[in-house]
Amino acid sequence: QIDDLEAFLAMPRPEGAHVRWLNVEGLNPQTVDRLRKHYNFHTLAAEDVIQPLQRPKCEAYEGYLFMVIRMIQISGGHMRNEQVSIFCFGDTLLTIQEMPGDVFDPVRKRIEIKGARFFQNKADYLLYALMDSVVDHLFPLLEGYGSVLEDMEEEIASNPKPAAQRRLFAIKRDLSQLRRTLWPIREVVDSIYRDESGCMTDPVKTFIRDVYDHTMQVIDIVETYRETASSLNDLYQSAVGNKMNEIMKVLTIMASFFIPITFVAGVYGMNFEHIPELNWQYSYYVFWGVCLSATTCLAIFFWRKGWIGGND
Amino acid sequence: QIDDLEAFLAMPRPEGAHVRWLNVEGLNPQTVDRLRKHYNFHTLAAEDVIQPLQRPKCEAYEGYLFMVIRMIQISGGHMRNEQVSIFCFGDTLLTIQEMPGDVFDPVRKRIEIKGARFFQNKADYLLYALMDSVVDHLFPLLEGYGSVLEDMEEEIASNPKPAAQRRLFAIKRDLSQLRRTLWPIREVVDSIYRDESGCMTDPVKTFIRDVYDHTMQVIDIVETYRETASSLNDLYQSAVGNKMNEIMKVLTIMASFFIPITFVAGVYGMNFEHIPELNWQYSYYVFWGVCLSATTCLAIFFWRKGWIGGND
Amino acid sequence: QIDDLEAFLAMPRPEGAHVRWLNVEGLNPQTVDRLRKHYNFHTLAAEDVIQPLQRPKCEAYEGYLFMVIRMIQISGGHMRNEQVSIFCFGDTLLTIQEMPGDVFDPVRKRIEIKGARFFQNKADYLLYALMDSVVDHLFPLLEGYGSVLEDMEEEIASNPKPAAQRRLFAIKRDLSQLRRTLWPIREVVDSIYRDESGCMTDPVKTFIRDVYDHTMQVIDIVETYRETASSLNDLYQSAVGNKMNEIMKVLTIMASFFIPITFVAGVYGMNFEHIPELNWQYSYYVFWGVCLSATTCLAIFFWRKGWIGGND
Amino acid sequence: QIDDLEAFLAMPRPEGAHVRWLNVEGLNPQTVDRLRKHYNFHTLAAEDVIQPLQRPKCEAYEGYLFMVIRMIQISGGHMRNEQVSIFCFGDTLLTIQEMPGDVFDPVRKRIEIKGARFFQNKADYLLYALMDSVVDHLFPLLEGYGSVLEDMEEEIASNPKPAAQRRLFAIKRDLSQLRRTLWPIREVVDSIYRDESGCMTDPVKTFIRDVYDHTMQVIDIVETYRETASSLNDLYQSAVGNKMNEIMKVLTIMASFFIPITFVAGVYGMNFEHIPELNWQYSYYVFWGVCLSATTCLAIFFWRKGWIGGND
Amino acid sequence: QIDDLEAFLAMPRPEGAHVRWLNVEGLNPQTVDRLRKHYNFHTLAAEDVIQPLQRPKCEAYEGYLFMVIRMIQISGGHMRNEQVSIFCFGDTLLTIQEMPGDVFDPVRKRIEIKGARFFQNKADYLLYALMDSVVDHLFPLLEGYGSVLEDMEEEIASNPKPAAQRRLFAIKRDLSQLRRTLWPIREVVDSIYRDESGCMTDPVKTFIRDVYDHTMQVIDIVETYRETASSLNDLYQSAVGNKMNEIMKVLTIMASFFIPITFVAGVYGMNFEHIPELNWQYSYYVFWGVCLSATTCLAIFFWRKGWIGGND
Repeated sequence: QIDDLEAFLAMPRPEGAHVRWLNVEGLNPQTVDRLRKHYNFHTLAAEDVIQPLQRPKCEAYEGYLFMVIRMIQISGGHMRNEQVSIFCFGDTLLTIQEMPGDVFDPVRKRIEIKGARFFQNKADYLLYALMDSVVDHLFPLLEGYGSVLEDMEEEIASNPKPAAQRRLFAIKRDLSQLRRTLWPIREVVDSIYRDESGCMTDPVKTFIRDVYDHTMQVIDIVETYRETASSLNDLYQSAVGNKMNEIMKVLTIMASFFIPITFVAGVYGMNFEHIPELNWQYSYYVFWGVCLSATTCLAIFFWRKGWIGGND
Repeated sequence: QIDDLEAFLAMPRPEGAHVRWLNVEGLNPQTVDRLRKHYNFHTLAAEDVIQPLQRPKCEAYEGYLFMVIRMIQISGGHMRNEQVSIFCFGDTLLTIQEMPGDVFDPVRKRIEIKGARFFQNKADYLLYALMDSVVDHLFPLLEGYGSVLEDMEEEIASNPKPAAQRRLFAIKRDLSQLRRTLWPIREVVDSIYRDESGCMTDPVKTFIRDVYDHTMQVIDIVETYRETASSLNDLYQSAVGNKMNEIMKVLTIMASFFIPITFVAGVYGMNFEHIPELNWQYSYYVFWGVCLSATTCLAIFFWRKGWIGGND
Repeated sequence: QIDDLEAFLAMPRPEGAHVRWLNVEGLNPQTVDRLRKHYNFHTLAAEDVIQPLQRPKCEAYEGYLFMVIRMIQISGGHMRNEQVSIFCFGDTLLTIQEMPGDVFDPVRKRIEIKGARFFQNKADYLLYALMDSVVDHLFPLLEGYGSVLEDMEEEIASNPKPAAQRRLFAIKRDLSQLRRTLWPIREVVDSIYRDESGCMTDPVKTFIRDVYDHTMQVIDIVETYRETASSLNDLYQSAVGNKMNEIMKVLTIMASFFIPITFVAGVYGMNFEHIPELNWQYSYYVFWGVCLSATTCLAIFFWRKGWIGGND
Repeated sequence: QIDDLEAFLAMPRPEGAHVRWLNVEGLNPQTVDRLRKHYNFHTLAAEDVIQPLQRPKCEAYEGYLFMVIRMIQISGGHMRNEQVSIFCFGDTLLTIQEMPGDVFDPVRKRIEIKGARFFQNKADYLLYALMDSVVDHLFPLLEGYGSVLEDMEEEIASNPKPAAQRRLFAIKRDLSQLRRTLWPIREVVDSIYRDESGCMTDPVKTFIRDVYDHTMQVIDIVETYRETASSLNDLYQSAVGNKMNEIMKVLTIMASFFIPITFVAGVYGMNFEHIPELNWQYSYYVFWGVCLSATTCLAIFFWRKGWIGGND
Repeated sequence: QIDDLEAFLAMPRPEGAHVRWLNVEGLNPQTVDRLRKHYNFHTLAAEDVIQPLQRPKCEAYEGYLFMVIRMIQISGGHMRNEQVSIFCFGDTLLTIQEMPGDVFDPVRKRIEIKGARFFQNKADYLLYALMDSVVDHLFPLLEGYGSVLEDMEEEIASNPKPAAQRRLFAIKRDLSQLRRTLWPIREVVDSIYRDESGCMTDPVKTFIRDVYDHTMQVIDIVETYRETASSLNDLYQSAVGNKMNEIMKVLTIMASFFIPITFVAGVYGMNFEHIPELNWQYSYYVFWGVCLSATTCLAIFFWRKGWIGGND
């Protein structure tokens, strides 16, 4: 926590340090304005920093690169899609996050442990490290979605509940959002790679190409999961249809078994004076025989159609 | 309200004013013709101004830029998609709207308050300010659609009424229209940015790039909402299917419970002379016992299938 | 009606006339061949003229442009998609239609009234006028489709009949055909605009750009209507599903009300000797009480589920 | 039928003949190898000739063009998709078909009748003629599909049988295959048109452009039919749904008419000692009156809903 | 199996051998690191080798090409998608597989038998041979999917079980994965073909073009099968719907036949004192006559609707 921003900014950097990384958490317009005055960046960039709904983009201004990327984290079971603004001034990297909590811990650890590499390079290597941690953080996150989708297949096929479908929609929405975030990030990485402002050195560009490959991998995974989610939706629809079929089958079988014999019973409940069968001694037993044989015929009919005893 | 158009146009502009902004409301062919004669713009441009069904476009004529954009407002619960024609002659900006009521009030306020910036620049900064207010006006408008869609999800999942689906279709239609309006606007902004006619100065181009970014953001939001609307439609279909399943389940359960025991009751209502059970003293109680156990068996069967007592 | 084609073609054109427009109706191979000999155009072009299934296209031959466009008219409630072949030889325009009846009347009128403009320009302005009338003719035609679609929404939502769906398919087919015709027309207009054969003068190119804009507008409208038609199809499916739900609800309610009490009636229709209730004086009234309360319970159950008294 | 291939190939060509066309039917690896040795073409080309699953393609080797196209014929009610390999060596054209039977008869007739044109040109005109006959052969073939689809619409709307749907799928599969064959053929024709190997002369290129146009026409027709087939599938689904609705309506109407009055009949079949109505003289007639009025009420209810007497 | 890697790598290659192929099975980070030190390739390439989730890609580093491709095999009824990393250093080819078992046996055989060709060329021909075997291995694999899909059509049309649909989804998922693997492989092959690093010689490029063609063929087949799988899913849905229709038809027919006559039987089971028909001598026979004629009427009605006796 730094109280006097201007004093801090004016401090000379320690001996041997080539790069300064300034990470600001929280979007305080006044802080951004003071940074703007110190580093002299464009008003529009400052505005973009403060409005946290930007698409990822990379803009070259004179003397510095301005990037907006989005950092995706799972927090409390929900996807959090946070904006990170990055200014790259040759030897200083300024990152501004919406709120505390980020995915940069691996970078911080690497700085502490094997800081050498970071100090030998200019800000471009640090920029690479940050981009890399943003993208690589998505792999475990997506693995989570993958295993949820796998579990859902079993659940949906056996017992299709509306709640499952809504969960599926929530996942599809998250994946959609990821896709919408990742495509422009891909473009950002690409334009960093093609950078003509001179901020990026050639050896670091090889590393950026690696980030690009990882981004493409992540996009591939997202697309695969989106397809899987669509298939699961189809599966859900079919499972609902099958359940309906089963319900109707039970109804049809029950009704078909009893409707005809109920009619027969009704016939001999009539009070006509002249019904010859009423007086015959074995009528009652013949009646049961007729009921049983009718039911058996129907059972055979249904069994042939595969409605009884089948295992579908 | 100006009565004598020609006299007004001939008036010298006040000292120190670099830019003149002329805003015409209503498409009066005669007014347009008088403007055409004064500013000497092309007949086809004049025709485009009068026919209010143009796609947004930007055309470079000799000495001036002619743009058609579309301004989207909500009025009376309906989306109003109004055409605005803009002529940019170096130091004069001529805008012609279909009818009174626009989204330019923020610009008017900024002119009054900190007019300096507007007066120092040529018409290009004013053009930027107008484009910006057209695009930025869409953010709150879209937020409205977003919250309606969110509310609908709950409603559709719990009680899928046809009215909800038709409302969903109306929203999809609005979003489609927005998309069809926004893509060409994006092109217009892009061609203003790439302008080679010399109307736009470099510092203003940076601002135009910002409008471009905002346009892309709006398009992104529209696409997200379109996807959400499609998902809601799927959800609606599923909800209707589920409701059907529920109806059929009730019917099947009711019928299955009573059809067999009604048959049994029918049997002992028969008037055969020889039905041994009729004379047995406990027959009636055995009858009820049979009914209860049959019903219990069926209840267990249905409960196992998850049709009774389940909470789906 | 001209009898002697060669004589006519050989006639010198009247003083002051810069352009000759020759319009042939009907695809007579012999006539086409005689024209081919006179104007010396390519055999393949002549073949294209005679086979009326061409896609719109624009081909530059040495010294002339050859275009095939398609003219869409409504005749007898059906869309008529007629081929028009156009040859543009500097100062002569040759148009060959499949059959009498076209959309060029506005052009003919304009030639008669303010012919000046047509006579001052070369054939290129006339070509523009023809293209313009082909494209502009589509606006009222599409408006017709638009109002039919609007009417159908109401009809489908309230009473989804199969006939409506088939009418919807017919409309979709027409719109598909329109789209397939318009995209290549767009290319034709674009290649006329980019024309490098020198047939088109610069001032006329500005007009051609206008035709291009109109073509894009028409395509936009067609796409919008196609989307609407798809939505209406979805709506139809939902309406059919809702109707089914309603039918099933009626069945379920009727069956659920009467099945249990019919069983009770059956019970007391049994002929067992020992049924205590039979002799009790108030049994009959209790029976009706049970029936009423069972029915009331079910009515409350259905009302809670929204199946009775709801207004969906 | 030629026995001694080498001797035949070594034969000098007759006086005045500019072009030699060698057509081989059947994929005999040895024959292909002997041809390869004589004409000295690449091993990979020879391999492509023998494996009859190639996509249409056009490859320029030094001194010759190698093309694979696919010839589509209907034989025995099924689509036959046969590979034809074409080598174009300046003045010799070598075509190798999978099996006897092709679409080149019109070319053979034209060679016999007005051979002049073929002999005056190099192999390029012959190549054009072959490509042309491959593409033009598709028009009547597609017309067949068109008329089948038209017939099916009527059939599906009136009586949707599963067999019709499977026939529809077979047609869709054929059209898909056609599309997959045609797009690369389009590319082949395009690369022949753009040929830079010098095999194609300029006048013939004009003809090739014509083949290109025809290919686009065929693709357009295929796309139209694919859309129609999709619509017919939708129509089938709707027709099945409508049939279901009709079945359910019959059930519901039957059940609703008889369930209530059956209950009433059951009530007066009860054996309670005290049922006042039993002794009343007109009870039986009142019973019928109640039955009739209940049924009439329901009939009115159903008629209002459009379930009875409507003509949908 | 080689124990001392460094010693092996340091061995001079045998006389007359132009190329060395080193194939490593299993992703041992230490082995990869020792190879990296010997061959001096980039750390990022080494990382890609170890992480087996790469997309196929081709990267040019100074002095060598690095490729990642994916080898698809069927093992134990499941598709195995294994990563193969390839380094091509002029005269040495280093391939690193995830695990033992590959598709390179045909190459190994060809090396043993007609090794000449491999030894005369540099590593590029060997690279071609490996790529070729990876792609060609897919043809028989896809044929397997093709025949499964063909069998499923029959099964689904006659008896649509949920298990079939899930098998269909599994196939769709495999095909999707294949597609996602093949498109970047296509790009890899294309960038090998366009290689500007000088690793590839012109004659070998002709062979690479052949691999490219095969890749396109495989992609075509995959797309065809994906379409077929979609159609089968549609077919499944329809078959489920048809089954439902059949069930409902049986129910409706059973219910419609017996409900009316059960009512009639109920009427004459009433205990009213005054029912004239009860005492009439022929009532019972008339009753059966009425039942039969009612049933016959309904049977005719259903037969007309095509619900009985039809063969759909």
